[in-house]
Amino acid sequence: MKEHSPVPTDIDPVQLTADLIRCPSVTPEEGGALVLLQKLLADAGFDCHRVDRNGTPNLFARWGRKGANRTFGFNGHTDVVPVGDADAWTCDPFGGEISDGWLWGRGATDMKSGVAAFVAAAVDFVRETPPDGAILLTITGDEEGPGKDGTLALLDWMAERGEAMSVCLVGEPTCPERMGEMMKIGRRGSMSVTFTAEGVQGHSAYPHRAKNPLHALVRVMDRLASEPLDEGTEHFDASTLAITTIDTGNTATNVIPARAIARVNIRFNDAHTSETLTARLREHALAIQAETGVNFALDVVVSGESFLTPPGDFVRMVAVSVEAETGVTPVLSTSGGTSDARFVKDHCPVVEFGLVGKTMHQVDERVEVAQIGQLKAIYSRILRDYFA
Amino acid sequence: MKEHSPVPTDIDPVQLTADLIRCPSVTPEEGGALVLLQKLLADAGFDCHRVDRNGTPNLFARWGRKGANRTFGFNGHTDVVPVGDADAWTCDPFGGEISDGWLWGRGATDMKSGVAAFVAAAVDFVRETPPDGAILLTITGDEEGPGKDGTLALLDWMAERGEAMSVCLVGEPTCPERMGEMMKIGRRGSMSVTFTAEGVQGHSAYPHRAKNPLHALVRVMDRLASEPLDEGTEHFDASTLAITTIDTGNTATNVIPARAIARVNIRFNDAHTSETLTARLREHALAIQAETGVNFALDVVVSGESFLTPPGDFVRMVAVSVEAETGVTPVLSTSGGTSDARFVKDHCPVVEFGLVGKTMHQVDERVEVAQIGQLKAIYSRILRDYFA
Repeated sequence: MKEHSPVPTDIDPVQLTADLIRCPSVTPEEGGALVLLQKLLADAGFDCHRVDRNGTPNLFARWGRKGANRTFGFNGHTDVVPVGDADAWTCDPFGGEISDGWLWGRGATDMKSGVAAFVAAAVDFVRETPPDGAILLTITGDEEGPGKDGTLALLDWMAERGEAMSVCLVGEPTCPERMGEMMKIGRRGSMSVTFTAEGVQGHSAYPHRAKNPLHALVRVMDRLASEPLDEGTEHFDASTLAITTIDTGNTATNVIPARAIARVNIRFNDAHTSETLTARLREHALAIQAETGVNFALDVVVSGESFLTPPGDFVRMVAVSVEAETGVTPVLSTSGGTSDARFVKDHCPVVEFGLVGKTMHQVDERVEVAQIGQLKAIYSRILRDYFA
Repeated sequence: MKEHSPVPTDIDPVQLTADLIRCPSVTPEEGGALVLLQKLLADAGFDCHRVDRNGTPNLFARWGRKGANRTFGFNGHTDVVPVGDADAWTCDPFGGEISDGWLWGRGATDMKSGVAAFVAAAVDFVRETPPDGAILLTITGDEEGPGKDGTLALLDWMAERGEAMSVCLVGEPTCPERMGEMMKIGRRGSMSVTFTAEGVQGHSAYPHRAKNPLHALVRVMDRLASEPLDEGTEHFDASTLAITTIDTGNTATNVIPARAIARVNIRFNDAHTSETLTARLREHALAIQAETGVNFALDVVVSGESFLTPPGDFVRMVAVSVEAETGVTPVLSTSGGTSDARFVKDHCPVVEFGLVGKTMHQVDERVEVAQIGQLKAIYSRILRDYFA
C-alpha cells in the first residue's frame, strides 16, 4: 500500500484560471472571483481582508509579518470587460472550457490567468520554502471600469495601516505575440483636453461682423497636430497627440456658429507632465485667441501621468527570470495604454509582466494552456530569486 | 361732435411687423404669416394666389391689370432663421415686443419689417392714388432655406401665366449701420461645399497605425480660412469664405475616428464662378490628400452665381427717393449675402433696399421702430415717382 503523502499537491494555475473564468465578474460585479481567491489564500495562511469601497470589491492578502523588510507585492484584477456580441463567441464566455491546448473565456488573458499564476506561485512558495519576509497580494474588482475605488482603495487602506510593499509586480498581459518577449517598466501618461471655442454668431455672408470660432479652432488644431511634442526619450517612444473629435452641430449653411468644440487625446512620456502639457496647449489657444478674438476654454481630464521604474536590480531580476524560463530576452517597454501600475508607482518600484494579450477584450478571448504554467514558473522563480 | 372720417386709416407698418413676428415662421413653417398678408391684401383689392410648391408656401398678389405696361414689383420673404440658443435671448423671439424704441424678435430686421413696409406702402398707395399700372407682390416662405420652391416657384408660375414685372425692388435689409446709407445693385454669388475626409480608424495611443481624418481636415480648413480669395472688383467687395460646421460625432477619447466632415460657405464676386472656385478647393484638398493619405470627397451646392444690375434709371430713382426721405446718399453696393434678387434678375431689373440689418440672424434680433415708418415712406415715394 502506497504511503499517504502529507504534502498537499501544488496548485494547478490552469484549473484556477478556469474556475475564475466561471465567475461572471464583469465590472463592477464581484462574481464570486474574490470570494474564491480569499478562501484559497486564507487556507494557505494568508491574512486576508476585503477592502471594498463604494461598492467596489477588493481583496488584500499578506503572508508573513506586516512591515517585513522584504515584502514582495503582486497586483492584479479579477474584473473583466463585457462579453460584447455573445452570439459571435464560439464558446460560452464564462464556460472556462479547454480545447486544442487553449483555455477559452472572458478574462482568459486579461487577466484571470495572471492572477491564478501569481496566487498559485505565492501559495506554493510560502508552503515549500517559507521566506524571510512577506508576500502581499492586492487584487481588485475594478481595473476595467472607472478604477477610482479599486487598486487605489487598496493602496489607501494599506497606507492607513502601515502596510507597504518593497517592490510590486503587476500581472497584466504584456507580450504582443510570443511569451516572454516584453515587460513594462513604465507607461506613458494619458490625458484628454476639450477645447471650447466661443465666438460671435452671425451671417456667413458677413464674416467680418461675426467671430468664427471654427476659423480659430482649426488654426489651433492644425498647430497642435503639426508640431511634434518630442522625439522620444531614453526609455519612451515619442509622445503623441490625436484630435479625436471636432463638433459644431450647425446645419445652416448661412450661419456662422457661436461655438465649436474639439477634443485631443495625448499620450506623453517623461519629457512632460499633464501640467506642462496643459500650459503648452493653453499657450497655443491664447495666442490664437489674441489673434482672432475667439475665446478658448480648456477642460483637462488626466487619466494618468507618465512614469518609469528605471532599470535596476528589480527590473533585472524579473528580466532574468523571464529569460531563464522562456529562452527569450524581454524588451523593457513603456508602450501601450494605462494599467494600475500607474497607482502602485507612487508607493514602490513596479514592473509589469504577463503572458500574450493578443485576444484581450475580444470575442473568443483565450489563452494557451502551456503559457499559464510557464507564467507560474516565472513568478515562482522571481520569488525564489527575490528572497534568496 | 367730430365728424367720422370715411377714409380708412393708413396701415401701421410697425403693428404689421409685430403681428408678423408673432407668426413662428421658421423655414419651412408658414406660421400664419402669409395667411395674414393674403387677407390684408385681398381686402385692399389685390388679386391674391397662394403659389405653394412641394410644400413651400408662397404668396402672389397683384393690384391692377395683368400685363400693364408699368408694373412695379416688390419681393420679400416671411420665413426666418432658427432662434438659436433660446435662453440667450432677453425677450421672447416670437413676442414682437416694443421697448425703448425697438421692436424685438426673430425676423425683426430680416425681413418682416421690410415686407410690412412695402405691403403698407402698396395698400395705402393704391387706395389713395390708384396708379395707371400695376403693383405686383411676390412673397415667399422659403428664402432662408433651400429656396428651390420659393421665389423661383412664384417666377415660374408667373411666366406660365404671362405675369411680368417691369422692375422689382427686393425689401431685404441693406444698410449696415445708418438708415439709407446703402442699396444693392447686384449680389455676390454663394456656394456651400462639404468636405468629407476619410481616414483609417484606430486607437488614439497608436496614431501611426491609423490615419486621422481630422488632422488632414483642419489643415485644409486652416489654409482655406487663411488665404484671401481676392481683393474685390469694380462694383464688388472681396469674396469671403466661412467654415460653417465641422462634425465628427466621436465620443470615445481613445479612438481616432474614420471620418469627419466640414462645410464652408463662400460668397464670391465677379472675379470667380462657382466652377473656378470648386477647382481651387479641390486642389487644396488633393494637396493635403497627397501629404496625409486621407481621402477627400467634395460635395458642392451652388445657391447662385454673382450678378450686377448696372446703374441706370431704376437704380437712380430708388437712390433719389432714399436720399429725399433720409438725407443720406445711398452707396450702390453689391456686398452681402445672396437674396432672391438672384432669381428676379433673370426677369427684370432688380435692386434691393431695406433698413439696417445689423442684428439679422443673431440672438436679440431687433429693429428701430422709427426705421419701419421711414422705410414705408421711402417705398411710398418710390411708387409715387415711378407712376408719376
